[in-house]
Amino acid sequence: MDSKKVVIGTLGSHSALQILKGAKDEGFPTLIVTIPKHKEFYKTFQFIDEVICIDSFSEFPSIENELIKRCVILIPHGSYVAYLGFEKNKNMKVKYFGNKNVLDWESDRDKQKEWLSTARINMPKQYELNDDISFPVIVKSHGAAGGNGYFLANDMTELKEKISTFEHKKYVIQQYIVGVNLYVHYFYSPLTKRLEIMSMDRRYETNVDSLGKIPHDIQKEIHINPSYVVVGNSELVLREGMLSKAYEMGRDVIEASKKLVDKRGLYGPFCLETIITPDQNFHVMEISCRIVAGTNLYINGSAYSWLNYNEPMSTGRRIAREIKKAIKENELDLLLD
Amino acid sequence: MDSKKVVIGTLGSHSALQILKGAKDEGFPTLIVTIPKHKEFYKTFQFIDEVICIDSFSEFPSIENELIKRCVILIPHGSYVAYLGFEKNKNMKVKYFGNKNVLDWESDRDKQKEWLSTARINMPKQYELNDDISFPVIVKSHGAAGGNGYFLANDMTELKEKISTFEHKKYVIQQYIVGVNLYVHYFYSPLTKRLEIMSMDRRYETNVDSLGKIPHDIQKEIHINPSYVVVGNSELVLREGMLSKAYEMGRDVIEASKKLVDKRGLYGPFCLETIITPDQNFHVMEISCRIVAGTNLYINGSAYSWLNYNEPMSTGRRIAREIKKAIKENELDLLLD
Amino acid sequence: MDSKKVVIGTLGSHSALQILKGAKDEGFPTLIVTIPKHKEFYKTFQFIDEVICIDSFSEFPSIENELIKRCVILIPHGSYVAYLGFEKNKNMKVKYFGNKNVLDWESDRDKQKEWLSTARINMPKQYELNDDISFPVIVKSHGAAGGNGYFLANDMTELKEKISTFEHKKYVIQQYIVGVNLYVHYFYSPLTKRLEIMSMDRRYETNVDSLGKIPHDIQKEIHINPSYVVVGNSELVLREGMLSKAYEMGRDVIEASKKLVDKRGLYGPFCLETIITPDQNFHVMEISCRIVAGTNLYINGSAYSWLNYNEPMSTGRRIAREIKKAIKENELDLLLD
Repeated sequence: MDSKKVVIGTLGSHSALQILKGAKDEGFPTLIVTIPKHKEFYKTFQFIDEVICIDSFSEFPSIENELIKRCVILIPHGSYVAYLGFEKNKNMKVKYFGNKNVLDWESDRDKQKEWLSTARINMPKQYELNDDISFPVIVKSHGAAGGNGYFLANDMTELKEKISTFEHKKYVIQQYIVGVNLYVHYFYSPLTKRLEIMSMDRRYETNVDSLGKIPHDIQKEIHINPSYVVVGNSELVLREGMLSKAYEMGRDVIEASKKLVDKRGLYGPFCLETIITPDQNFHVMEISCRIVAGTNLYINGSAYSWLNYNEPMSTGRRIAREIKKAIKENELDLLLD
Repeated sequence: MDSKKVVIGTLGSHSALQILKGAKDEGFPTLIVTIPKHKEFYKTFQFIDEVICIDSFSEFPSIENELIKRCVILIPHGSYVAYLGFEKNKNMKVKYFGNKNVLDWESDRDKQKEWLSTARINMPKQYELNDDISFPVIVKSHGAAGGNGYFLANDMTELKEKISTFEHKKYVIQQYIVGVNLYVHYFYSPLTKRLEIMSMDRRYETNVDSLGKIPHDIQKEIHINPSYVVVGNSELVLREGMLSKAYEMGRDVIEASKKLVDKRGLYGPFCLETIITPDQNFHVMEISCRIVAGTNLYINGSAYSWLNYNEPMSTGRRIAREIKKAIKENELDLLLD
Repeated sequence: MDSKKVVIGTLGSHSALQILKGAKDEGFPTLIVTIPKHKEFYKTFQFIDEVICIDSFSEFPSIENELIKRCVILIPHGSYVAYLGFEKNKNMKVKYFGNKNVLDWESDRDKQKEWLSTARINMPKQYELNDDISFPVIVKSHGAAGGNGYFLANDMTELKEKISTFEHKKYVIQQYIVGVNLYVHYFYSPLTKRLEIMSMDRRYETNVDSLGKIPHDIQKEIHINPSYVVVGNSELVLREGMLSKAYEMGRDVIEASKKLVDKRGLYGPFCLETIITPDQNFHVMEISCRIVAGTNLYINGSAYSWLNYNEPMSTGRRIAREIKKAIKENELDLLLD
């Protein structure tokens, strides 16, 4: 690839606006691949140089050669992985920002558990159906599905009944921890070996984030099935006395990945999805090994990024800056797969 | 009106600080009309050139001639409409940013319903008292009352009892949709025919946003009547895959207004107040045809405004910029009524 | 103290990052005193010139002479007071930003009540155990404990039982007010006698902010004890029509302190912790007479600070700017104790 001709590209959904705004701010040409229903919307943004439209996201591989010819570096995000699927993604030949070997460890719940355990990260208990389960539990489908298909169960009858009608084949039964959600967004630079906390968020989930507004009297009479579909994110900062712990969790995850995955390990943006209990402990439900949607709050920087940069620094822009630095230092291979 | 002497003015409440800060940033002289209890507070801000104090907001028409003489362009906001009332507002002669014909369509629930239907916008069901009502329902008074007087009813007895003591004469009985709230703030430029999403928010309502913190055991024993009085707003971003739909809803509302209201239709800032259900559908409860209080979060720009502007752009400033552009292009008549 | 050699220092926790980033932005050398578990984390920030590590925060007085020799001005925050304790703090000789006489009035619940009453501030009822108590009540330990040890009680049996096992000796029994929380962050300048609203926040408390997500059916079966441990903060703006009241409360608290405490009274950053009921009234639960953690959201400024400054202005930076101005005007004694 001719590093002077690099174009930053991504799939038109999830965090594409942030990624391409950041790329443009760092001086790159930008390209988006999207579907008809999003096309006109993405065309309204001046920082997107080119909009390529395909019929559905699953057809993405069909334009791969075009992207390779155009020197595109593809920035993956949650929807990218969800739409393409694991196998298609691994087989793509277009330059990919990130270490694809990490995907094996992230997508398999058992391997993810081994990874987090190696990093000495505290996790909720996971159960099999025939375990001695302590209820309530939350059942989650595999992959980045934005909370779609998650459900809560309070006893074995409810659990079995709901699982029997469960449309997603792969799932995990997780201890339901009573505590508040907090998602920590990290960036690890393979060039400088430096870890940064970029920002944090809490998810905005429908309908579960509206349940509390319905008084007891009415909840008693209308049965509401809680659902966990993520439709937005809102800002948060963490109690400062807990920040060093959050930072160490990120560092430990990186170090463990270098042992378990390969020498390069995890790098670039990633996220730990935590629940915090009243003893101020983090319980990590999941790791996401790429940019997460919660970073969309911080197009102009977060409380944390302003500590490290005297200019607006979104996670999207941070990715582009890493690529720019790698091009300058002739180290682009360190970043791409 | 001498366009070289334009002063941006508004009523001292609601979003006046944002409007006048934005006006000053765009180079306009600024004026506020307020009441004694707010006077000293507004005087602490350097970007407000003049504070005019009247005894009560309803006396506003008495200073109208003064404002006309001073070349004031009045920026309306939610409190402006609520304090003046529909008739007084329509009869004012001072230059008004916006199309007053829109007021007829916004203030009448049936016309608003026709408008949103024409725009193919999804709405909660509305009931009459003798309909076959599917409970729970939320009952809302007409006009911009900041959630004051809204109530929830779970059966016909409760509904009739509460309505009988209802202080507001006009109301609407709306299906209570279980889902999360999200308010989308738009700006449509009559000069460029371009629509922008400026920002989003969720409301902070007392006491309903504190109900969930009270455990079931205690809610059972102390009966709490939920209330929906808006006392603040907090930040949000929307899942990016739903943004193009949010954008289209705004566009469709503008287009429908050009058919139904008049050739100019709705322009400037407006807001769709939505509830999002787990199927990721928007249900629009209401349209507000002017600047809403949720934009007060974004004095220095929002995640969305930073995508379109490389400088801080609040909705208040966006209004002033439109006026500035219109003055330059000698098109001020397009904006004012 | 040689005012040309001033170093801004604080304890490494709570809001230290904000304080020292602000100090550096105003041109001061910076120093942090922290404990081993936070040391590496604080070393990652370029705006911290020196990290001093002590074994535990309670050993802070042992390095006092060193700090005095180095011309350190110490900026106190919530953890500073909690870790050192009242007596140690009062006896420290290192230059302290703030009026230490205020501590007597803040730390004693009866004196605080007298102070707020003098300022005509609305407060929740406080009860003694043998009062005729109207339940529910919330019981709070004294001092800045981040919500740790707070509990809710719904009748006398529960209250007595919980108090009997209460680890904190000093506590207050407060009427539980059903309404939304809002914390107002002020700064009062002793140099200009000007009061500013810097920002606002709501706390993020575990587990109480996650209770509402658990449906009625499940809360009925699993008993959850609500807890109020603050682990984060999120952004808010207040309805503009209530801002002048918020401003006046701050002003009245300052004026009352000049009568009750001493001529200087309270100055610098402080916070009123309010609950807002549906009648739009503020109920002030507590006053914090120093920088609070909620300001950590606004490293790059808040909606309110952007109204007053055309540059990013956190509360931490505002403190440093006051010190800078005092040095220039040879008035440093007005600020320090």
